[in-house]
Amino acid sequence: MPSTPDLPADLVARARDLDARHAAADRRDAFHLPDGLTYLDGNSLGALPRTVAARVGEVVEREWGEGLVRSWNDAGWWEAATRVGDRLGVLVGAAAGQVVVTDSTSTNLFKVVVAALGMAGSPTRGRVLVDPDSFPTDVYVVGSAARLAGGQVDRVAPADVAAHLRDVGDEVALLVYSSVDYRTGELWDLASMTAAAHEVGALVCWDLCHSAGVLEIGLDAHEADLAVGCGYKYLNGGPGAPAFVYVAERHQAAFHNPVAGWNGHARPFGMEAEYEPAPGIGRARSGTSGMLGLLALEEALRVYDGVPVADLRARSLSLTRFFVEALGALGVDLPVVTPADDARRGSQVSVRHPEAYGVVQALIARGVVGDFREPDLVRLGFAPLYLTHHDAVVAAAHLAEVLATGEFARPEHTRRALVT
Amino acid sequence: MPSTPDLPADLVARARDLDARHAAADRRDAFHLPDGLTYLDGNSLGALPRTVAARVGEVVEREWGEGLVRSWNDAGWWEAATRVGDRLGVLVGAAAGQVVVTDSTSTNLFKVVVAALGMAGSPTRGRVLVDPDSFPTDVYVVGSAARLAGGQVDRVAPADVAAHLRDVGDEVALLVYSSVDYRTGELWDLASMTAAAHEVGALVCWDLCHSAGVLEIGLDAHEADLAVGCGYKYLNGGPGAPAFVYVAERHQAAFHNPVAGWNGHARPFGMEAEYEPAPGIGRARSGTSGMLGLLALEEALRVYDGVPVADLRARSLSLTRFFVEALGALGVDLPVVTPADDARRGSQVSVRHPEAYGVVQALIARGVVGDFREPDLVRLGFAPLYLTHHDAVVAAAHLAEVLATGEFARPEHTRRALVT
Repeated sequence: MPSTPDLPADLVARARDLDARHAAADRRDAFHLPDGLTYLDGNSLGALPRTVAARVGEVVEREWGEGLVRSWNDAGWWEAATRVGDRLGVLVGAAAGQVVVTDSTSTNLFKVVVAALGMAGSPTRGRVLVDPDSFPTDVYVVGSAARLAGGQVDRVAPADVAAHLRDVGDEVALLVYSSVDYRTGELWDLASMTAAAHEVGALVCWDLCHSAGVLEIGLDAHEADLAVGCGYKYLNGGPGAPAFVYVAERHQAAFHNPVAGWNGHARPFGMEAEYEPAPGIGRARSGTSGMLGLLALEEALRVYDGVPVADLRARSLSLTRFFVEALGALGVDLPVVTPADDARRGSQVSVRHPEAYGVVQALIARGVVGDFREPDLVRLGFAPLYLTHHDAVVAAAHLAEVLATGEFARPEHTRRALVT
Repeated sequence: MPSTPDLPADLVARARDLDARHAAADRRDAFHLPDGLTYLDGNSLGALPRTVAARVGEVVEREWGEGLVRSWNDAGWWEAATRVGDRLGVLVGAAAGQVVVTDSTSTNLFKVVVAALGMAGSPTRGRVLVDPDSFPTDVYVVGSAARLAGGQVDRVAPADVAAHLRDVGDEVALLVYSSVDYRTGELWDLASMTAAAHEVGALVCWDLCHSAGVLEIGLDAHEADLAVGCGYKYLNGGPGAPAFVYVAERHQAAFHNPVAGWNGHARPFGMEAEYEPAPGIGRARSGTSGMLGLLALEEALRVYDGVPVADLRARSLSLTRFFVEALGALGVDLPVVTPADDARRGSQVSVRHPEAYGVVQALIARGVVGDFREPDLVRLGFAPLYLTHHDAVVAAAHLAEVLATGEFARPEHTRRALVT
C-alpha cells in the first residue's frame, strides 16, 4: 500500500481545530476501524460498532442456544421489530409507534406503494411519481408495484415535481423520492415537497437510505406520510441489516399491507382463518424477522445514545465542506457534483472523473475506500460518527496523488463489480 | 424442575437398541443442547449447531469489521443467496440453480402466487387453491396476493383437491399446499397432488416449512413447479433465519417477481433505468439479504454433510413411531392425531387434550419443550439430527406424569403467548 502523502501543515492544523470544535458528535472510539484504512464508504456499509460482536454472540449462544424457542417471549424477540423501530424513529423524527424494522427496503417500498394506491381510494388517482435518477431499486419496485395495483408511473425529476403536480396533481396518489440522492449527494427539500404533494391531495414516501442517521429529517414535524430506508449504511446495522418502514399514525388504519404475513396480524398466535391487521404499525410486518440482523442493528443504534442529531449534522456538514476545501488547497481540479450549499448537501462528496472507476480502485489500493457510481462518479461518504477532519485531509491528499500519478489508468484497476 | 420419572427398563433398553440401529443419522454432538432439557420444538426453532457461534463471530469481526464493503466481493456475500440455495436444494431434491435463500416464507410465497398467476397466462385461469388448515400465513398471503393479481382463492382441504380439480381444473392456476401439516403432522402426497394438478394444467407451490431437512421431498423427481420454506425449523438456521424459494428451471423464464428489487436484476451494478430480471433463479431475489442470518444458516447446513436424507428419514420415523409406542406402554390414553402410517407422517407427534395449553406449560416446567397448537393440540417435534429414542422415553414419561398428577390445570400454567 503506498504510504500516506505528505500532508500540508496548515490543513492538518485546521483539521485538528475542526475536530475539536465538533467533538460532541465524535464516536470514533465506539467503532472498530481497520488499521491504516480511511473508510469513506459508510454510506454503502457502515463500520462495525465495537459492542456488536459481543451482543451477537450473546444472541446466538445464550438466547438461541440456551433459551431456544422460549426466547421469542423471554428475550423480547417478538417485539424487537417495533422496539427497534421506536429507537430508530428518534433518529428520523418519528414519535413511537410509527416505525417498524423488518424486511428489505425493496420489500418495504413495495408494500408502501401498493398500500398508498389503495389509500388513494379513487381509480382516477393512480399516478405514482418517482425520480428516474433514484437508486434503481426504487424505480423498479415502484414500477412493479404500481402495475400490479392498477396505477401508473410518472418518472419526474425532483426539480420538475412542482410543475407536474400543477398539471395532473389530482390524479397523483403517491410521490416516491429520496431524501438524499445516492449519487450526487443532493439533499432534497422534504418539507416543501411534502407540502406541495399534500396541496393536491397526494402522499409522499421518502426513501431515507442516504439520510437516516446523519441529518435531521423531522418526519412528524413535516407531516410526512410514509418512509422507508435501510439499516446498513449510516445506521451501521451490518451487511444486509433489516430495513425500516414509517407509516404516520393518521394513515395506519388505511394502510393495507399486501404482503399480509402472520407477523402483521392483530392476533398472530390465534392462528385465525381470516387476516385482521394489527391496529398500529405492526401491520407493516409480514413474515418473521431475522433476529441476528435485527438485534445487531439494535445494538449498533446504541452508538447514537447521547448524540443529538443536530450535532451530528453539524459535524457531517463540516466534514464534507472541509473535504472540498482540502481538494482545492491540494490542487484537485475535478467537478464537485455535490451541492456546496449546506441546505442542499447530504453527508457525501461526489466528484466527476472520466475514469472514475479506476480512480476509486486506485484509492482503495491506497487504503482509501470509496465508491464508484455509474457512469463517472467518485463517491465519498462521510459518516460523521467515526470520521474525522484529519481523515478528510488524508483522503484528499491520496486523491491528489492518484490524479497526479495517473495510477487510475493502471491495468490492475480495470473494472470488476462493486456493491452499494 | 420435577425430576425425571422412573423409566421402565424395557423401554430404555429398546430405546438403546433403536438409537444404535439409527446411529448413521445421529448428529447430536454437533449441537448445543441445554442441560436437562428435552427439546421437542425443533419444528418451531431448531437447536444451535455448535460451530455457528464461531462462524457468526468471524462474519461480524473479520468479514464486516475488517473487510467492510469489500466483503461483498471478497467474502462471497453477493453470491451467498444462491450458493446457500444450492446447498439447501440438495436436501429438498433440487438440482443447482433452482433455489435461492432470501426474505421470509411469507414474502416468498407472495412472490410465487403473483408470479404463478402471471404464468397461467389466461384471465380464465385465475383460481388459487389453498388448504384452509394451512399455517395461517399461507392463507393470508395467498388471499392478499391473489386479490392483487386478479385471481380468486378457493379454500379446499387436501382430501377434496382431486374432486375440485375435476370440477373446475381448467380455471385453476395454482395450488398452495403444505408438504406436512403444521398441526397434525400429516404428510401429504406431493407426487400425486403435483401430478393431478399438472393433468389439468395447473401449477403447485409446496410449503416445505415442516418437511425440509427431515424427509425426502424430491422436488425435481416429482416435477414440482414451485416451493417455499423457512430456514429456522429443522434446518437450524437460527431465529428468523432467511427463507427459501424454489422455481423449477423450466418455469424460470416466465417467473416475474413482483418485488422487483435490484438484487434480482440481470446486472445489479449496472444501475440501469429498466428492470431486466436475472436469467436464472437469481430473479427471485428482491432487496439485500441479511448476511448474518444467511451465513449462519449456511454454517448450520454443514451439519447435514455426510448424512443421507434417507437415513435421517428412517431415524425420524423410528423416533415418532417409538414415541407413540412409549405413550401406549406408559398408559397415556390420548388421541394421537398424527397418522400411524409411515407414508403419511412427518417428523412430529400431535396428541389431543382439552387442556392442551396447560399440558404444554406443565411439560415445559418439567424441561420438556413442545408446542401448543390451537385449539387442543400438544405438538411434539422430533428433530432427528439431535434427538434420541431415549429422549422419546423421557418425554413420554413426563407426559404420563403430567396427566396423572393433573399438573396441567395448575394456575401457573394458564395461557400466555407462545411462538411458532
